[in-house]
Amino acid sequence: MYQVDLNCDLGESFGAYKIGMDEKIIPLISSANIACGFHASDPLVMEKTTALATANGIGMGAHPGFPDLQGFGRREMKLSSAEVKALIIYQIGALSAFVKAKGKTLQHVKPHGALYNMAGKDEKLAMAICEGIRAVDEKLIVLGQSGSRMEEAANSLGLPFAREVFADRAYEEDGSLVARSKEGAMIEDEEEAVSRVIRMIKEGKVKAVTGKDIPIKADSVCVHGDGEKALKFVEKIREAMIKEGIEIKPLSEMRKA
Amino acid sequence: MYQVDLNCDLGESFGAYKIGMDEKIIPLISSANIACGFHASDPLVMEKTTALATANGIGMGAHPGFPDLQGFGRREMKLSSAEVKALIIYQIGALSAFVKAKGKTLQHVKPHGALYNMAGKDEKLAMAICEGIRAVDEKLIVLGQSGSRMEEAANSLGLPFAREVFADRAYEEDGSLVARSKEGAMIEDEEEAVSRVIRMIKEGKVKAVTGKDIPIKADSVCVHGDGEKALKFVEKIREAMIKEGIEIKPLSEMRKA
Amino acid sequence: MYQVDLNCDLGESFGAYKIGMDEKIIPLISSANIACGFHASDPLVMEKTTALATANGIGMGAHPGFPDLQGFGRREMKLSSAEVKALIIYQIGALSAFVKAKGKTLQHVKPHGALYNMAGKDEKLAMAICEGIRAVDEKLIVLGQSGSRMEEAANSLGLPFAREVFADRAYEEDGSLVARSKEGAMIEDEEEAVSRVIRMIKEGKVKAVTGKDIPIKADSVCVHGDGEKALKFVEKIREAMIKEGIEIKPLSEMRKA
Amino acid sequence: MYQVDLNCDLGESFGAYKIGMDEKIIPLISSANIACGFHASDPLVMEKTTALATANGIGMGAHPGFPDLQGFGRREMKLSSAEVKALIIYQIGALSAFVKAKGKTLQHVKPHGALYNMAGKDEKLAMAICEGIRAVDEKLIVLGQSGSRMEEAANSLGLPFAREVFADRAYEEDGSLVARSKEGAMIEDEEEAVSRVIRMIKEGKVKAVTGKDIPIKADSVCVHGDGEKALKFVEKIREAMIKEGIEIKPLSEMRKA
Repeated sequence: MYQVDLNCDLGESFGAYKIGMDEKIIPLISSANIACGFHASDPLVMEKTTALATANGIGMGAHPGFPDLQGFGRREMKLSSAEVKALIIYQIGALSAFVKAKGKTLQHVKPHGALYNMAGKDEKLAMAICEGIRAVDEKLIVLGQSGSRMEEAANSLGLPFAREVFADRAYEEDGSLVARSKEGAMIEDEEEAVSRVIRMIKEGKVKAVTGKDIPIKADSVCVHGDGEKALKFVEKIREAMIKEGIEIKPLSEMRKA
Repeated sequence: MYQVDLNCDLGESFGAYKIGMDEKIIPLISSANIACGFHASDPLVMEKTTALATANGIGMGAHPGFPDLQGFGRREMKLSSAEVKALIIYQIGALSAFVKAKGKTLQHVKPHGALYNMAGKDEKLAMAICEGIRAVDEKLIVLGQSGSRMEEAANSLGLPFAREVFADRAYEEDGSLVARSKEGAMIEDEEEAVSRVIRMIKEGKVKAVTGKDIPIKADSVCVHGDGEKALKFVEKIREAMIKEGIEIKPLSEMRKA
Repeated sequence: MYQVDLNCDLGESFGAYKIGMDEKIIPLISSANIACGFHASDPLVMEKTTALATANGIGMGAHPGFPDLQGFGRREMKLSSAEVKALIIYQIGALSAFVKAKGKTLQHVKPHGALYNMAGKDEKLAMAICEGIRAVDEKLIVLGQSGSRMEEAANSLGLPFAREVFADRAYEEDGSLVARSKEGAMIEDEEEAVSRVIRMIKEGKVKAVTGKDIPIKADSVCVHGDGEKALKFVEKIREAMIKEGIEIKPLSEMRKA
Repeated sequence: MYQVDLNCDLGESFGAYKIGMDEKIIPLISSANIACGFHASDPLVMEKTTALATANGIGMGAHPGFPDLQGFGRREMKLSSAEVKALIIYQIGALSAFVKAKGKTLQHVKPHGALYNMAGKDEKLAMAICEGIRAVDEKLIVLGQSGSRMEEAANSLGLPFAREVFADRAYEEDGSLVARSKEGAMIEDEEEAVSRVIRMIKEGKVKAVTGKDIPIKADSVCVHGDGEKALKFVEKIREAMIKEGIEIKPLSEMRKA
């Protein structure tokens, strides 16, 4: 039987500021990437988010980002490897304490925003992140893009790596995402997006933007919960998966491939 | 044989800003209260401080404070119990990750600055702090003032509590510190300060500001490392202890009373 | 002819976080209290808010708060008078630059949240705030509650003071607000709230919670724009004012009493 | 008679954290670049620094930086032009209020750290900064490196520009600084550094790292006050200037060339 994880960013509110529809998306996903207070969230939001995730029985992951609340971690910052390693340790540790207080164990780590994007292409940055993860717990699953520098770094340090795919993004022939600035970067048609993901999971293939089929491995599908339209799409993708006999499971409960 | 711990605040630098003489004080103490990034410190400073503490074999404690870097955690803030509990969990978790990465275990928790002072007198605040500590690990030692609301809260939640004394402060008859604003609040004479501490440890007594002897229990002596004069005083107090047959040990290695 | 100002907090978004319905409330009010980056807002939000206020021709005021973004400036902090004076100068200066860049002049200053509430009762704090305001520009109008320590401080320093009233709050016989924790603190009935405000403006009187009529002076009515219900109420209060021949004007354009 | 300005970064302390020797360097310089609370400083430090500068009669400039206190504004950040323009307006405004409260007028603006370095080479960034400066006050002098993108941007917007030179840095033939990573980037010999600066001022020439003489214009010399050695060098350079008949004056008091 096929298995896949559905992951979504969660717990991105801050103080009086609310972002996302955490209560509505959480029953639809199997893993949450939980903000750790640097690009979003605060201790009280982390307490509530880990409580909500625990109540819904989903896998919890740390979602560390740049120390840039104003930019929501989406602005590139040039940090030393030592700084990056340290901020990864810090954020994983902070979130872990809330997870532990719920009697649970942290499942994975997925860098956020600009840190995710930069680390996908920058070997040194990817290594700094993975060294930070390993320093805390070498059993933590690194969640990242297939074929990225993050996968290489995780492999070289012996960390488990889960490959995530995107339903709404087009791929280049080398398996990288088509840059958003380019024509055809987004898969606008929802039916097409759904059938592409199903094929990735069942056949391990996707049609690149060039029209050529390329191999792709989908351990987890990244979905969004920041609007009614996004929620509807997640419901649609779930229905299609269930109909196709694909089991939706947190990363930590999946069969090893 | 008598035993006592010497604790000192450590790791209070931040980015390009340096505070304290950590390298010089660390060989003289047995436990460090390490700042966690809210009132002082940052991830890189925490990495360096836990490395330094590990290399010197001293006990490591979390030193959580109010989220007030500008005020160094010394300005009173009115937070809800839920907020306090969450910021305690967060800060302990963040520091624990660095401690764990060094192959060590966090020894204790001592609130910082205004949080320490307020919690000593405020039962609700003390309970919120202790609930946060217990949520992370009920074996963590709470370090606080004897007879304070913190001791009561720790006891009521079943957390181990270590009583700290101050060499340079006068005591009221009820065991509380004489307010700094009052005449005679500080013990200015170093010889007197040293002999008072020795007596606290060996006899379990101290002369209150009124002249009356009161009982006091000293598990740990709080010292400072923020200047040459402070360092000299710690050396003097150490020498006197050794001469008096008092063993200086981290809290976690002390015999249970 | 009667005149009154309608003031509302504006520009409280921050980075990716959105709060308030600024575009919808702004055509209904005559003065905006604009957040200055300490309890809410950031430079880009301040740029957009002053542009919006300028386009709508309303009076612009600085809305300085405690340096506590996480608590939205609603948590009490104990700062020295020097610290308070400096943070008032800083925040007024920052906002003034955006106002000046639009070719306008800052109209007033109204402290935010906990700072507003504390300063209403604390003479020393009120003086520190007013000294900060005077240091920047002694022509700035201080907007605060009638009979508060802020009014006294503004008067003692020779700063113009505008008295604001609340449509939805009950008053004690001494003119202070009934504490929210008490029975009857809020005026729930909208018709009653509207007629109370009209009477404050036209007769200079309001019925205190005890049932006794007390004198009250209304230069400005504080309204809210954080929800559809709040917007509807502002529309209702505007209509009633216009029907009663009350002119709605920014503080700086009002006839001197 | 020759004239030149000596500029130095000032007011970089933060809360309990102290950086620099402001009291010692200030009598030796004619202009101060004062931190504005983003990469360093806080409102109270700004109050004290502007008071100190006023007491010493030197020119005051805003020293805006990236919103990165932890990195002291030295880490590159990728911000939009709108974000940069807004943070420039904000920081100039904040500092201006303290300067105005002292009865003085802000003299100049010099970006700090990574913002300075990036803007020297990045036309779009330089324009965003200069647009921010112009939005506040088109009479503000922009202080930057001769031949940089900042000079071009200031010129294109009609802002006065003052060219600063560095005594301790080698120059390429095109007038840019030799990268610190290259051999010979620093002028280690103090006598040589002094005579190079004197020649820049009197002859308008400097020997590039290649050995070729190049033209250079020195309106202001950048000096440092962060250590005893730096202070001694400033004293030496002052003495040499006075001996050579060069008058040391704030930018705003210099004769127009």
